[in-house]
Amino acid sequence: MSRKVEIYDTTLRDGTQAEEFNLSVEDKVRVALKLDELGIDYIEGGWPGSNPKDARFFREIRDYRLRHARIAAFGSTHHPRKEAHLDENLKALLEAKTPVVTIFGKTWTIHVKEALKTTLERNLEIIEASVRFLRPHVEKLFYDAEHFFDGFKEDPDYALETLKRAREAGADVLVLCDTNGGTLPHEIVEIIREVKKHLGKKTVFGIHAHNDSDCAVANSLAAVLEGAVQVQGTMNGVGERCGNANLCSIIPNLVLKMGYECEAGKNLHRLTEVSRFVFEVANLPHPRHLPYVGRSAFAHKGGVHVSAILRHPRTYEHIDPERVGNTRRVLVSDLSGRSNIVYKARQFGLELSAEDPVVGRIVEEVKKREAEGYEYEAAEASLELLMYQLLGEPKRYFELLGYRVLDLRPSEDGPPLVEATVVVRVPPGVGEVEHTAAVGNGPVNALDHALRKALERFYPQLKEMKLEDYKVRVLPGIPGTGARVRVLITSRDHHRQWGTVGVSEDILEASCQALIESYTYKLYLDRKAKGGS
Amino acid sequence: MSRKVEIYDTTLRDGTQAEEFNLSVEDKVRVALKLDELGIDYIEGGWPGSNPKDARFFREIRDYRLRHARIAAFGSTHHPRKEAHLDENLKALLEAKTPVVTIFGKTWTIHVKEALKTTLERNLEIIEASVRFLRPHVEKLFYDAEHFFDGFKEDPDYALETLKRAREAGADVLVLCDTNGGTLPHEIVEIIREVKKHLGKKTVFGIHAHNDSDCAVANSLAAVLEGAVQVQGTMNGVGERCGNANLCSIIPNLVLKMGYECEAGKNLHRLTEVSRFVFEVANLPHPRHLPYVGRSAFAHKGGVHVSAILRHPRTYEHIDPERVGNTRRVLVSDLSGRSNIVYKARQFGLELSAEDPVVGRIVEEVKKREAEGYEYEAAEASLELLMYQLLGEPKRYFELLGYRVLDLRPSEDGPPLVEATVVVRVPPGVGEVEHTAAVGNGPVNALDHALRKALERFYPQLKEMKLEDYKVRVLPGIPGTGARVRVLITSRDHHRQWGTVGVSEDILEASCQALIESYTYKLYLDRKAKGGS
Repeated sequence: MSRKVEIYDTTLRDGTQAEEFNLSVEDKVRVALKLDELGIDYIEGGWPGSNPKDARFFREIRDYRLRHARIAAFGSTHHPRKEAHLDENLKALLEAKTPVVTIFGKTWTIHVKEALKTTLERNLEIIEASVRFLRPHVEKLFYDAEHFFDGFKEDPDYALETLKRAREAGADVLVLCDTNGGTLPHEIVEIIREVKKHLGKKTVFGIHAHNDSDCAVANSLAAVLEGAVQVQGTMNGVGERCGNANLCSIIPNLVLKMGYECEAGKNLHRLTEVSRFVFEVANLPHPRHLPYVGRSAFAHKGGVHVSAILRHPRTYEHIDPERVGNTRRVLVSDLSGRSNIVYKARQFGLELSAEDPVVGRIVEEVKKREAEGYEYEAAEASLELLMYQLLGEPKRYFELLGYRVLDLRPSEDGPPLVEATVVVRVPPGVGEVEHTAAVGNGPVNALDHALRKALERFYPQLKEMKLEDYKVRVLPGIPGTGARVRVLITSRDHHRQWGTVGVSEDILEASCQALIESYTYKLYLDRKAKGGS
Repeated sequence: MSRKVEIYDTTLRDGTQAEEFNLSVEDKVRVALKLDELGIDYIEGGWPGSNPKDARFFREIRDYRLRHARIAAFGSTHHPRKEAHLDENLKALLEAKTPVVTIFGKTWTIHVKEALKTTLERNLEIIEASVRFLRPHVEKLFYDAEHFFDGFKEDPDYALETLKRAREAGADVLVLCDTNGGTLPHEIVEIIREVKKHLGKKTVFGIHAHNDSDCAVANSLAAVLEGAVQVQGTMNGVGERCGNANLCSIIPNLVLKMGYECEAGKNLHRLTEVSRFVFEVANLPHPRHLPYVGRSAFAHKGGVHVSAILRHPRTYEHIDPERVGNTRRVLVSDLSGRSNIVYKARQFGLELSAEDPVVGRIVEEVKKREAEGYEYEAAEASLELLMYQLLGEPKRYFELLGYRVLDLRPSEDGPPLVEATVVVRVPPGVGEVEHTAAVGNGPVNALDHALRKALERFYPQLKEMKLEDYKVRVLPGIPGTGARVRVLITSRDHHRQWGTVGVSEDILEASCQALIESYTYKLYLDRKAKGGS
């Protein structure tokens, strides 16, 4: 029989404490709607008493009809020198007009004395009065016991007393917080057992973990096994310092491996999409190694294994990637073999047989290029173009006849002047020759500008395309400035994103290769969309 | 009483299975030496039977006298259709001439049948024969039980039998591997208890975890609590798919929180430095949210908390950051920098007091430059030169009045022609002007050649110096080819090695800054050695 767990997302509140994670009110609304689609039970929208932006979020989100989620407002217990009904923070919480309120109070004696600057007894009164004041106004009232585990280690009796007061005053769930993130899983288990011993086996409690010991997910799972009914965390584990407990790992662990049920478990196939959406909105790169949802999470290297993986994926993957909406990736690496190439070709819409001699030629060429420093894992557009070339169907829409780049710093303090000139022929072999020039803030930028200027006359659709990312890696081998470099470029237009690669001892030459393949791929995609080639 | 645990690092083998983590043989040697300094017990250098590059690493590392670490070679049990003494893979393992060998065998019945394509009984013979064959030739022999936990779930008796055979044949440690990374901490505990029930309480075992369920660190700690004497993992958790167990989290958890001892525990204050060094060598950004060692791990936001944090750091930090060589960062405050700067200055032989106004100016300048993209962790020579400049003692031995770089590819197939011209004045301000030119195989290389040609006339000792490494990182911000780049250069002469940095939107300008600082530092070191400055 499966047990239910409720998922409480605090990406919009605790998550935004992360150094690089910033969301506007509009972003927050978009993320909240997406979390609702996923089936998150509670969405903590912010701390209205501390942030006017958060108050606006609560006003705006009321205009939307949510499918399942309930919005929570977060705030602290009342000020030590005030009474509950006169406290600004509690008032702001109620003004957020959310069905759920989460209120946090102090557990750790040193924080009561140092941060609150009050007595231990007064803190207990504050917790009780704050919970009691809010109780009649909300559907659900959660009590976050801040620094619970550290506080328990320091003074267990006092820590337990704070929980009792919150419960007596009407809190629905007592959420045990590892605020500093220093607690390890075996301690979580021991302390929760003590809590249940003193407050009763039926104590309704939740867990809120931080990742400072790299155990936030395990701590959350351990708490659930000990009976927690609510797990608080954030998407992709975003949060202050080392982040919060990562819901994108916790939810599939609970549902796929531990037999628990939650609403988001019904929409697990959307998990990867939602995880990437949240970082997309925040304009953060999505870390490729994220469990379950990262681009590398189901990536397999090596030729000999590929056929085995395709026959028996379960023996090489802890779960089927489709269950969380992720996909298996077979990396074309220097171990690659025929089956890899056939698999990739199928992704590009080319049906090849492993016995076809052209597959052998492609394998040889890829190996040769990888030995030279090319890498196709992040440059699948270059791989696709290479395959067509070896199949005797080169995709070429122009040829670069020559270029010149001049980078001049005429005086010690003046800025460099960078100019590129290019000569292209469109279409290749027979077409018109265009000779033009442009400047840029660096030599690669100038080359990019000059090439586009020359080509856009013939192919105005190149204006739709932009370069999203430009990466340089110096390859091992010759040390120092004579080394070979590999340039990886990511480009996109309105619909698609693609990667290309170039390698040379000359960084401009390598960049030029990757740029040319990027423009070429755009032109190829547009023709393919129109049914040509 | 504290218990001992041995740390087994596989960054150089399993770590390099990560999609973006590539190391040359030279890089591997540098990383191995650094891991030895940290006090890692075993360093797995590679799989000599599968990769000729790895065989070279084992030859080269023998020239170094390691302080503490022992090097391990990794390989598989012998081929099903061969005998142990005729097997190429086992031969390659012995040819690596390492004091330690780690050999992996199959535990999971489906892998025996599908991957090895042999019978269950034959697999047991293979394990036994392979271990027995290697045993007399090595000091330490470890047996990695691949897919142990999945294999145990499928057929516990068979999984246990593989361990017994490896132990009987002489393996020193039975390493239980969660190869697919799907096992959760409570399952690790249950299965290890079963192992001990059947193989005896004194079974000597280790743990090798992967992070596909986001629990690799917790799984490793759980295994240690159940008696594991060896933990295998990688620096920063780098590895295939979602990575391996992160030693940079495991080691401080074991030592600072669980009362275990290991050699690396004695050098914990160097953990952050080593963690960053490894990713620097691989030219990967160091994720800021990494527990213990990340730049954000001890970053505190907000003014009101600052004084409380400084008075009672323990109440806001799970450990003292200095214990792992990391630093507290108080965001939006210059308090974080001063002690750092004083500490660094002392390393450079400069005694400064934290109250000295020049320290404040240095902090400001460093912050300003870091905001622009400079980074001094791998470029201490640039930091030292900057400090002298702000102390009113600029070290300048020449000035670059101007340069011009021309990169010309006159035809589609011909190689580019790259030429640099430079104008320098030696000594600066008053000296002779030298105007010269040189070619190179790329624009940075040409600039390097021209600068040396101009300067060596005045400073022939620059001939002793060579550039060891040249790295480029594109900085986040403006996307595409208009982005800012950071260039890091490592140089050395007969005695010393140093790093310098340059930042600009123009890669040649950034390279030029780093080159100039590198030559300057060499000239400064030589004067200092002679007692001048």
